[in-house]
Amino acid sequence: MFEAAELGRKLSKEEFAAAAPALRAEMLHLQVKLREADFPVIVVFAGVDGAGKNESVNLLNEWLDPRWVVTRAYGSPSDEERERPEYWRYWRDLPAKGRFGLFLSSWYHSPLIGRAYGEISQAEMDDRLDQIVRFERTLADDGALIVKFWMHLSKKAQKTRLKKLEKDPLTKWRVGPDDWPHWKQYDKFVEAAEHAIMRTSKGHAQWNIVEGEDARYRSMVVLTTIRDAVNRHLDVRAAFKESLAAAKTAKKSKTAKEVVLSKQPTILSSLDMSLKLDPKDAGHLLQEQRGRLSQLHRKIKDNGLTVLTVFEGSDAAGKGGAIRRLTSALFARDTQVVPFAAPSSEERAQHYLWRFWRYLSRAGKVIVFDRSWYGRVLVERVEGFCTEDEWRRAYDEINDFEAQLVAHGIVLVKFWLHITKDEQLRRFKDREDIDYKRWKLTEEDWRNREKWDEYEQAVNEMVERTSTLAAPWTLVEANDKAFARVKVISTICDGLEAAVKKHGK
Amino acid sequence: MFEAAELGRKLSKEEFAAAAPALRAEMLHLQVKLREADFPVIVVFAGVDGAGKNESVNLLNEWLDPRWVVTRAYGSPSDEERERPEYWRYWRDLPAKGRFGLFLSSWYHSPLIGRAYGEISQAEMDDRLDQIVRFERTLADDGALIVKFWMHLSKKAQKTRLKKLEKDPLTKWRVGPDDWPHWKQYDKFVEAAEHAIMRTSKGHAQWNIVEGEDARYRSMVVLTTIRDAVNRHLDVRAAFKESLAAAKTAKKSKTAKEVVLSKQPTILSSLDMSLKLDPKDAGHLLQEQRGRLSQLHRKIKDNGLTVLTVFEGSDAAGKGGAIRRLTSALFARDTQVVPFAAPSSEERAQHYLWRFWRYLSRAGKVIVFDRSWYGRVLVERVEGFCTEDEWRRAYDEINDFEAQLVAHGIVLVKFWLHITKDEQLRRFKDREDIDYKRWKLTEEDWRNREKWDEYEQAVNEMVERTSTLAAPWTLVEANDKAFARVKVISTICDGLEAAVKKHGK
Repeated sequence: MFEAAELGRKLSKEEFAAAAPALRAEMLHLQVKLREADFPVIVVFAGVDGAGKNESVNLLNEWLDPRWVVTRAYGSPSDEERERPEYWRYWRDLPAKGRFGLFLSSWYHSPLIGRAYGEISQAEMDDRLDQIVRFERTLADDGALIVKFWMHLSKKAQKTRLKKLEKDPLTKWRVGPDDWPHWKQYDKFVEAAEHAIMRTSKGHAQWNIVEGEDARYRSMVVLTTIRDAVNRHLDVRAAFKESLAAAKTAKKSKTAKEVVLSKQPTILSSLDMSLKLDPKDAGHLLQEQRGRLSQLHRKIKDNGLTVLTVFEGSDAAGKGGAIRRLTSALFARDTQVVPFAAPSSEERAQHYLWRFWRYLSRAGKVIVFDRSWYGRVLVERVEGFCTEDEWRRAYDEINDFEAQLVAHGIVLVKFWLHITKDEQLRRFKDREDIDYKRWKLTEEDWRNREKWDEYEQAVNEMVERTSTLAAPWTLVEANDKAFARVKVISTICDGLEAAVKKHGK
Repeated sequence: MFEAAELGRKLSKEEFAAAAPALRAEMLHLQVKLREADFPVIVVFAGVDGAGKNESVNLLNEWLDPRWVVTRAYGSPSDEERERPEYWRYWRDLPAKGRFGLFLSSWYHSPLIGRAYGEISQAEMDDRLDQIVRFERTLADDGALIVKFWMHLSKKAQKTRLKKLEKDPLTKWRVGPDDWPHWKQYDKFVEAAEHAIMRTSKGHAQWNIVEGEDARYRSMVVLTTIRDAVNRHLDVRAAFKESLAAAKTAKKSKTAKEVVLSKQPTILSSLDMSLKLDPKDAGHLLQEQRGRLSQLHRKIKDNGLTVLTVFEGSDAAGKGGAIRRLTSALFARDTQVVPFAAPSSEERAQHYLWRFWRYLSRAGKVIVFDRSWYGRVLVERVEGFCTEDEWRRAYDEINDFEAQLVAHGIVLVKFWLHITKDEQLRRFKDREDIDYKRWKLTEEDWRNREKWDEYEQAVNEMVERTSTLAAPWTLVEANDKAFARVKVISTICDGLEAAVKKHGK
């Protein structure tokens, strides 16, 4: 694979100087166009040490307007990073739409080095590479342009370079303590690299192998590759937008199949909505579960576990009340409720999952998400706030996201609170009557109600596709508030008990 | 001071139950009104262990809608926190406008405990208390409501409580390893507390001393105090808004004094704007300084120092070009340029300094702010985006902010790039002619130009008030771009050399 990057390609000073001024102007012009675009550009640099990764990043920072470029390099994770899933630190650093993000020693670093030194098996490496593919696909599907450079040097050229650096007192410091040991692993490193490149070079995130020995040649390759990729992507996105607009004007009609199948029972219609607690037991039962939760919370904290509970449900199903009964049984200092409504402007400039990654907490906490990433396959689907492609692929993205949470040891508990259509009407009318509850009822609630059947279909599909062994849904029959609250808290307690048993000390 | 909190005040179960339902409704109603308001509510709980700090926070989380409440408690700082000034972690946790923030073991914790154990002197404690006063005043001046509770227990009551907890196997764990040692320091702790309360109880952030022994009594005091304070503050802010609106309609005319004094020379008019480099030396001199910077950057990184450079200047003064010459001489992986334009919606919901705190970096980095907090006393002042009170008090706020940065060891370098009015016109016209520079020139630039004299006065006052020994301004004569770039980089190098000498290993 790397033979084609050991050909001794080079540019003379004159050749480079002749092309530079026009290219420079093109790069700046490109950036002006990009700033108005609806996608970020993610550039990954990996490769052999000394093949010009840092130099290329410096060059881009020099040729581009550095104000719209973020450059990130990663060392050992901080304690705040270690307490979250591995990819948290990459998610928080993603560039907003219209900007460049340049990544050094990125998500490829640790699987490659780990494999070159034999610290991880081939199978472990493949798992991690597949995770990378899913990560990059998630971003690319959302429109991100991903350009990856593998900077190559032959073993001999790398040796020559290190020796040359060592000889000059002014550059001696640039040879770090890892450089010679890395060089000794050259063959294994290159073998791991070839495998990684093959497994992670996808249409949406291709590798470009760059011969790194001659600085002018590699600079020209990096710059023109980025220029061309951005230009192509601007066209692709423009065409995509047009096709979306065209699709919108084409009127949709339900197919016969949809009409017939919409009469079938859903997972919600199969719930026993008459479930309720005897009012004289309800208070006692709730207190019992709250006491149990209180005891468990201490163990959660002692074990540094993180708990993430997700509440979704029909309007007026009692999410707020259930959340309050839950959190008030916990130590407030270790509990946080995060409500999700419309995204902020900063959130809109990122992938839709970004704002949920953002609120993942440090260890030892109980976090309650009032609504969640499931908005994508519920309200955004039904109201047409996203395209059909977007919500269809969201199931996969969500399963992958949740798998990362669970793999990190986060206790994830997801609730759908369900009420019947009649019960909802009764509650809406109640809200109109009680002064301090009136704000809760909006025009939107009435509008959503008209789409009851569509929401029911969406919930059914959501449960079908995202209730996994690692992260199952709990459907809560919520016509009786007391029953719902006890079920919510006891389900969480069961989850915590299992987690303490599994991870606990 | 605390005698009045050892009177044995209590409420019977019946008394509490009689008042509770109405109060509960009031609290929820209050929160609905608060959500529309333009200020956050910051509630601080401090006091004797066992006097109900945690319980009060739990109660508020139960009685309020927890979705609009953030609760924060602080232990040892994380490594990401240690690498920034002490208050960074409080700034990042501040509640947005319309929300409650409940703070436990907050900014009061470490000075109080430090003093009670004799780890810091009275003078050091006073320094830290004064820092608290400035912090709280900064927030209160911006409209925040700050309510502070000191929860009190007598020494005897605290002892009784600890013994009781220890006796019950179910609550034994609540007596932590610090609790008895703290109790032994009771007298010293209370002495330090009295001093702290007196020094930090200001009109805008008053302490409320609460007798903590009876849970019902203290709950009622905490809840009603908050209710009344929020209601009062809603009125105060409404009146404030009205007075602002009235002031706006009252037409302003320049006083005689202003007219006379505006003819006086400013610090900008005293600059020698003819300074320039001989074109044949310019390239060489710039390269020399860039080389010097490169060498210094390594030392900065090795020493874990943080460098923050701030660029302000007239439109078209060449900030972008100077920044590019600067950053391209640095390792891109340890450099970040942060441009500040209009604040995002999340930033608008916070104090204006919040977004600058937000971008303080971890150690070992060079951060370049393209525009900064000085917008408050420049564009916001001249364009009337903030009130006169706001920009007038900003000088103090800024000096305090910068003092915290410098005290933390951050190397802070501030530049004003200045060009003459003629030179600006020439550059505007140039921009109109060059394709990829045209986007840089906006209608706003022409409008700003008409206010040249007002900006000059604002800059003059800014330099007068914020060029401090710890954080001096460097005024850069920028009619000649080469001269400006060399001056910028050599000034930074001088600052870095001094810092390495002072902090370096």
